[in-house]
Amino acid sequence: MKKVMRGKFITFEGPEGGGKTTQARRLVETLEGLGREVIYTREPGGTPTGEAIRGILQYNTAGEPVCPETEVLLFAASRAQLVRHVILPALERGCWVVSDRFADSTTAYQGYGRGFPVESMLTINAFAISEAVPDITFLLDIDIGLGFERLAERHRQTNTAKDRIEQEERAFHERVRQGYLQLAERWPERFRRLDAARSPDEVAAEVWSILEGFTNITG
Amino acid sequence: MKKVMRGKFITFEGPEGGGKTTQARRLVETLEGLGREVIYTREPGGTPTGEAIRGILQYNTAGEPVCPETEVLLFAASRAQLVRHVILPALERGCWVVSDRFADSTTAYQGYGRGFPVESMLTINAFAISEAVPDITFLLDIDIGLGFERLAERHRQTNTAKDRIEQEERAFHERVRQGYLQLAERWPERFRRLDAARSPDEVAAEVWSILEGFTNITG
Repeated sequence: MKKVMRGKFITFEGPEGGGKTTQARRLVETLEGLGREVIYTREPGGTPTGEAIRGILQYNTAGEPVCPETEVLLFAASRAQLVRHVILPALERGCWVVSDRFADSTTAYQGYGRGFPVESMLTINAFAISEAVPDITFLLDIDIGLGFERLAERHRQTNTAKDRIEQEERAFHERVRQGYLQLAERWPERFRRLDAARSPDEVAAEVWSILEGFTNITG
Repeated sequence: MKKVMRGKFITFEGPEGGGKTTQARRLVETLEGLGREVIYTREPGGTPTGEAIRGILQYNTAGEPVCPETEVLLFAASRAQLVRHVILPALERGCWVVSDRFADSTTAYQGYGRGFPVESMLTINAFAISEAVPDITFLLDIDIGLGFERLAERHRQTNTAKDRIEQEERAFHERVRQGYLQLAERWPERFRRLDAARSPDEVAAEVWSILEGFTNITG
């Protein structure tokens, strides 16, 4: 099925403070500026079912704490629906899809970070996403200390609080970072590790340069 | 963890029309009659999160069709929550748990029946249930034709309609039945195959006889 897809599927991954959302949105704008049809996705959500799941996960609509195993499976369920109702149909009609986090986040955060078996996370992901494997995954790699400083600055500027994941101890985030690096080693064809300590402009320029080399993107 | 549990976890599985609900409820009544604390569970549901998931799955509260992969993962998510918030705490305090269907249903229906990879179903189940492996699983095995006749009779009597699973073609239900038989062969210590073509009284008597042999149930 993969070979008949005409659009490209690009994901941004990495630890907190690496600028994933910024880079994903810039890429979307750049592609739109070239007249490309492009969809920006973010998890959980993106479908009515995914939004219902997001309500359970983030706003605790069910009124009880969701246990970590349930969380993994709800993320995967939301992803499975997004893949089949949004991502695959878009790719098949030639649309690009840019995602701010995707399946690798489950492996990095719940597997390497929280200690669930990595191979179980990979099996659950593979079942959820089927053929929707990203064409390129940009790993915005950043020193955890620097990422935390950036997060703190963002929360000061926007007067927001750290979310549940951001509140995890530093050792957790170090494990997540190392997990991402291991995933990048395991799938070197798909992953591109970028130094996210640089300015957003520099990172965006490298993202674009890699995409130009990867595909005749401007054609 | 398993070894400190004082309660027993009993599940009823099998194709449609085998009398799982009848037998599960009879067992609950018998145990209650002996003064045992016992919980009856049914999936999806059983926790606030599970009920929210049930709403998505059965009443389509999200307003869109749930794709089959999402369905598998939502069932597993509901099960993970039920295990940690209800089943394991109950078993640990000495309560018995009797479930009308459990993880094997996913393997039989979505794996063998619908054709998803059986090993993926087993991995997802294992992650969802952790140490909550049933002590005994009664497989109420029945010829699919006879099971269908019983279902039709029940729907006539109760003036109800076949649900989505019941409407699947006969070949699907045959695959489910054969799948259950394979699971019973794979885990002979846990499974007890019962001939469900017999009367409910006869089946209930065998269930009780097996449980008496398995544990000092009346003590």
